[in-house]
Amino acid sequence: MKTITVQSVIAGMLLLTNGAAFAQSAFKTLPGFTDKTSAAQLQTEAQFDQLVNADNIGKTIFDLAARPHHIGSANGKAVADKVAAKFKSYGFDVKTEVFQVLFPTPRVRELELISPTTYKALLKEPALKEDPTSGQDGQLPTYNAWGADGDVTGELVFVNYGLPADYEQLERLGIDVKGKIVIAKYGRSWRGIKPKIAQEHGALGCIIYSDPKDDGYFRGDVYPKGAFKNEYGVQRGSVMDMVIYPGDPLTPFVGSTEGVTRLDRSKATNLLKIPVLPISYHDAKPLLEALQGPVAPEDWRGALPITYHVGPGKAKVHLKVENDWKQTPCYDVIATLRGVEYPDEWVMRGNHHDAWVNGAADPISGLAALLEEAKAIGELAKKGWRPKRTLVYCAWDGEEPGLLGSTEWVETHAAELEEKAVVYINSDGNGRGFLQAGGSHALEPLMDDIAKTVTDPQTKVSVFERRKAAEIIRAATTASRREALSKRSLSLSALGSGSDYSSFLQHLGIPSLNLEFGGEDEGGEYHSIYDSYYDYAHFKDSGFAYGVALAQTAGRAALRMANAEILPFNFRNVYNTINGYVADLLTQVDQMRENTVLENQIIRSRAYKLAADPQLVNFPPKIKAEVPYMDFSPLQNAMQDLDKVTRLAGDSLSKFLNTANDHGPINKLLYQAEQQLLSVKGLPGRPWYKHTLYAPGFYTGYGVKTMPGVREAIEQRKWEQAQQQINVAADAIRQLADHLYLLAKLAG
Amino acid sequence: MKTITVQSVIAGMLLLTNGAAFAQSAFKTLPGFTDKTSAAQLQTEAQFDQLVNADNIGKTIFDLAARPHHIGSANGKAVADKVAAKFKSYGFDVKTEVFQVLFPTPRVRELELISPTTYKALLKEPALKEDPTSGQDGQLPTYNAWGADGDVTGELVFVNYGLPADYEQLERLGIDVKGKIVIAKYGRSWRGIKPKIAQEHGALGCIIYSDPKDDGYFRGDVYPKGAFKNEYGVQRGSVMDMVIYPGDPLTPFVGSTEGVTRLDRSKATNLLKIPVLPISYHDAKPLLEALQGPVAPEDWRGALPITYHVGPGKAKVHLKVENDWKQTPCYDVIATLRGVEYPDEWVMRGNHHDAWVNGAADPISGLAALLEEAKAIGELAKKGWRPKRTLVYCAWDGEEPGLLGSTEWVETHAAELEEKAVVYINSDGNGRGFLQAGGSHALEPLMDDIAKTVTDPQTKVSVFERRKAAEIIRAATTASRREALSKRSLSLSALGSGSDYSSFLQHLGIPSLNLEFGGEDEGGEYHSIYDSYYDYAHFKDSGFAYGVALAQTAGRAALRMANAEILPFNFRNVYNTINGYVADLLTQVDQMRENTVLENQIIRSRAYKLAADPQLVNFPPKIKAEVPYMDFSPLQNAMQDLDKVTRLAGDSLSKFLNTANDHGPINKLLYQAEQQLLSVKGLPGRPWYKHTLYAPGFYTGYGVKTMPGVREAIEQRKWEQAQQQINVAADAIRQLADHLYLLAKLAG
Repeated sequence: MKTITVQSVIAGMLLLTNGAAFAQSAFKTLPGFTDKTSAAQLQTEAQFDQLVNADNIGKTIFDLAARPHHIGSANGKAVADKVAAKFKSYGFDVKTEVFQVLFPTPRVRELELISPTTYKALLKEPALKEDPTSGQDGQLPTYNAWGADGDVTGELVFVNYGLPADYEQLERLGIDVKGKIVIAKYGRSWRGIKPKIAQEHGALGCIIYSDPKDDGYFRGDVYPKGAFKNEYGVQRGSVMDMVIYPGDPLTPFVGSTEGVTRLDRSKATNLLKIPVLPISYHDAKPLLEALQGPVAPEDWRGALPITYHVGPGKAKVHLKVENDWKQTPCYDVIATLRGVEYPDEWVMRGNHHDAWVNGAADPISGLAALLEEAKAIGELAKKGWRPKRTLVYCAWDGEEPGLLGSTEWVETHAAELEEKAVVYINSDGNGRGFLQAGGSHALEPLMDDIAKTVTDPQTKVSVFERRKAAEIIRAATTASRREALSKRSLSLSALGSGSDYSSFLQHLGIPSLNLEFGGEDEGGEYHSIYDSYYDYAHFKDSGFAYGVALAQTAGRAALRMANAEILPFNFRNVYNTINGYVADLLTQVDQMRENTVLENQIIRSRAYKLAADPQLVNFPPKIKAEVPYMDFSPLQNAMQDLDKVTRLAGDSLSKFLNTANDHGPINKLLYQAEQQLLSVKGLPGRPWYKHTLYAPGFYTGYGVKTMPGVREAIEQRKWEQAQQQINVAADAIRQLADHLYLLAKLAG
Repeated sequence: MKTITVQSVIAGMLLLTNGAAFAQSAFKTLPGFTDKTSAAQLQTEAQFDQLVNADNIGKTIFDLAARPHHIGSANGKAVADKVAAKFKSYGFDVKTEVFQVLFPTPRVRELELISPTTYKALLKEPALKEDPTSGQDGQLPTYNAWGADGDVTGELVFVNYGLPADYEQLERLGIDVKGKIVIAKYGRSWRGIKPKIAQEHGALGCIIYSDPKDDGYFRGDVYPKGAFKNEYGVQRGSVMDMVIYPGDPLTPFVGSTEGVTRLDRSKATNLLKIPVLPISYHDAKPLLEALQGPVAPEDWRGALPITYHVGPGKAKVHLKVENDWKQTPCYDVIATLRGVEYPDEWVMRGNHHDAWVNGAADPISGLAALLEEAKAIGELAKKGWRPKRTLVYCAWDGEEPGLLGSTEWVETHAAELEEKAVVYINSDGNGRGFLQAGGSHALEPLMDDIAKTVTDPQTKVSVFERRKAAEIIRAATTASRREALSKRSLSLSALGSGSDYSSFLQHLGIPSLNLEFGGEDEGGEYHSIYDSYYDYAHFKDSGFAYGVALAQTAGRAALRMANAEILPFNFRNVYNTINGYVADLLTQVDQMRENTVLENQIIRSRAYKLAADPQLVNFPPKIKAEVPYMDFSPLQNAMQDLDKVTRLAGDSLSKFLNTANDHGPINKLLYQAEQQLLSVKGLPGRPWYKHTLYAPGFYTGYGVKTMPGVREAIEQRKWEQAQQQINVAADAIRQLADHLYLLAKLAG
């Protein structure tokens, strides 16, 4: 929708050589704006940029991360109140909405090796003299929220990252975890996946530890000398089975408001039945060292100075966890700046405020940028500027235990959001490095334009240029390097889960974005007592310059969405994205078919048996059923329709922008379009997740599965379900095509 | 040359289902034998198999590895004498040829960290109570033979494996090793390459250590609990620059016989100018821990529980080495069983007898199999069997310091060998696992047939079938798995260096083979005091069954070559092999050309600069000159000739086998054919290496470079040299084609 003029081409050329200096050129026409309103918008954005201040972001981080402030704590409430007061001082209308949510905290945590030697795990991160907040009262102990209460004793088995492929490997080694306690490494999945799969395999309990290979001295100097995890550091975190549904486990689909019917805890399908405990590598070493059984496969081994064995054998552990399962108030701070033209169209921006401990990086660095945006917008408003649409700035509580605050709020306001929510722009923390942008693909051109406008603080090129450079250098093959080099626009990644956008996007179909900077801020502070201001200022974003970059990126997205004439959604990008997914699925099924035939041939040839060391247990894989051919035509035909209609809609909208016709109905059709991609029934076995394009993977968690219904059925070799889900996805795409056809007709 | 009969097809089919049980079927016609002589040969081989005895191999290993027996030691002489006595007792004529070779042993070895803390390296492997020979007198200390004398102090720099790519990486980190001491990990190259490259870069000294990731607890339980290197284990070894020439550094091209002119030591081009010392990971840890500077790139990091830094900085070390550079007698034991029909055609078999310490695995396990073959052949001879050709069984001295015994012997007897040597069959140790066979590709069909005949002791299928199974399972891609599954014949690997075949094959062009079993015998005993009978019997080949398999494989090769009517060389395999190399080189040049253009574009785009963390030193790679087009047509035209003539020669020989014509001249042409592939001038900068197909890599050492003249020029981007070497290779191939044309005419 951007009109290319000679001037903009020249500006673009200069941009390539002189960085972002010319980004704010008045010659530019913004997507969704007319020439005239573009100029005004660019002026607003230039003013906005000036109002965002790095020192102030630093001060906010210092202030809000000054004390441990998890959900339910007095400090947590104090942070919510401070945030509310800040919004109020910026000129926003503020409301704190309170939910009553379940939130377990531990009463008893015990882990000991009882055979062949004994070791009692410390389960404690020590205070460090260098880090002034590391010894404060009020820290939550090291634990995994939502692990079951339990008192179990059993032989220990090392299960690598605890993922399905690891259990296949265990089966080939002749090892069964039934009746045993597993120890898994953090990493490669949402942590809740590990105990879930252990439980599926009959384990009694699950220990999760941070191996120094992934998160410790192998990666760099350890805290406080460097940023990486020292031997005592522990990653707290939720093990709710969030891929079933997030939020209060007792109130799926509805808000945890007063008087709502709550499930009995034993009926909550996203809660585990086995106890779980996270430990440091200091505590893990004696346990792993005691293991017997086969030497772990090479890619299972970490960086502890031991030979990693799988077990089981004489190494036995005793694990005991007891929680206080209490209702806790959850404070969501909602700040509103009313839109003058379309007050019932909400441009939303959010970041959580609760932390596992002090949370300087997670979440305060993101929240500080968000508050800086709100402050700047408030100052613009004080000078007379007003948004066309209502800006809703949110600070969520209870994100850490399971997106509690955002989920309960979204479930409570679902009907209103379906009508009013234009976009939800999320962040969850921030650091030094490269723009990481994920979200609804209709917003790709918007974010492309913004990424080319915001200046990287270190290199002074645009954040797009810097990210592109990283993509070129990281590309592994000649083909992918060449592709990265010739890339002309930003790609959004697809969103999985792990932050507050989940209920907006995946439950309601509200177009969403998730933004942060990072990649040069790596460390081991995550969910530990060392996620402190000291750590942040030393290792994450010393000058808070990337706080400015995040505020400029997310703030610009909010301002553009708030004031666009025609909302800058581009469904051609959605078409292209889905087209890629479909091609990918077709290739995947063909490859699985081919590989299954070959693998079965190999198994039948006895090659596995003959290649195995007869002195070790090493069973061949099992013969798998061959992969049938499936009917992809409903999907392919729906895509043909979407192809045509997205071209048509694009043409109609370009013309429509400069007419004097009422933009209101067109904009509503635009921002409600993504809701067409929902399926009524949701994903198989997890009806809360309704989006047919994006979901967290059932066995990956944070990791996204695109076209999840189809893809997971294929991955799990459920062929009938795959066929059904092809049809479900086709219906959703056709629904979107029909909706866009209406829009095109209305505009054209 | 094998005649396919209905019976042999049936036997082959049975073989696939019933293992090697039918391998000795009397229906089979062997390559190079008539139907009638095949039957006799198979009967001989069946008798031979019965005469090879595992217990006896175990006893030989126990006996010959009972004491440390390096070259120049009294025990070394005693082992040579024992071996000579054994050959004699088997009925061979035995001659011990003595050379006077240079062999340095250390007088002073000191290594200490002098700043910022101090640590004095132990430089000593402790005796273990479990291993009865580990505490014996007469052990050579831990050292790298041929490192220069020196007393140097300097800042320490960690250089990963010390290979050219590692120095490119150092350059990008802004680190220069000039005037510094480097510490490199063992692995990924012949060890002598590491100090050579360090010296090329101006380093003062070189320390080489065994990282537990490659050779220690990361890989499995450590000795004596398991087979892998414990923290004190040290790999001794030669750092002669063997890729220039092996053997006595003072007598290149000629034998170190009495009265020969010797170079001044300072003139020997394969000797280093800097001191070198190998150390354990126990000794390496304090040194590496003291390093400052950037964190090492991820793939440089090992398994020590530290953050690996590159240096330089405050970490300074003092390294002092002084050697006793003395002449030492070198005893080659040459045992001969005279051929009755062609006494002047020599079928040679060899293994060295000297060890760094006790050397149960290296070399005694190979030597024990060789002696068992000789014993069995001796017994056959006592029953009246005689070889057509003369069998020459050799036990070399001084292999460990630099192939001294074999090289001096080959140089001394070069003219005779060029006339008489039919084949040289080498081994250098043995263990449990899979057949590993490398050598002259004209011998592929012979070894294919043998590999399908010898039974794997553990699985009872043929050693070919077992190896094929491993290749299928290890294949990384679908395409390579499919290819491995459909494989019908054995492929020989190409030979680099590191054992006694080098002078036969690469200096004289004598067709060679190198055989061993292994892959299920991994451990860390190599060149340490723990390479003992205790270790061997526990971890390498407990029942010595693979000693039997090696004796059956190598012995069969010797027996077939000794008694074939027409020597079973097949030059069609040579054609196919070279054809693969040429295709590979063409692809490589094209890819280099394409990648250079792309990489230069990326450098010019500033992507390296923009992607780099500005807080770290990270220079972009340098622009490289573009890759010109070269004229491969001389090679391609020579290959066209070789294509035709190898078909013609194959046809002629099939017919010729069953004629009554004199086989002598044909056989001589056959066994001298590989000599045609030599170039008079040898490889650029290393004229000793004359083979145009096979050489150890100039910067890899053990690792082979096929078509080395062309390939290394290309890799080193010396385009003019590459063109010259294309012409040299083409000439050699045409020389072979002309030779084979003569042969075909004579036979046909």
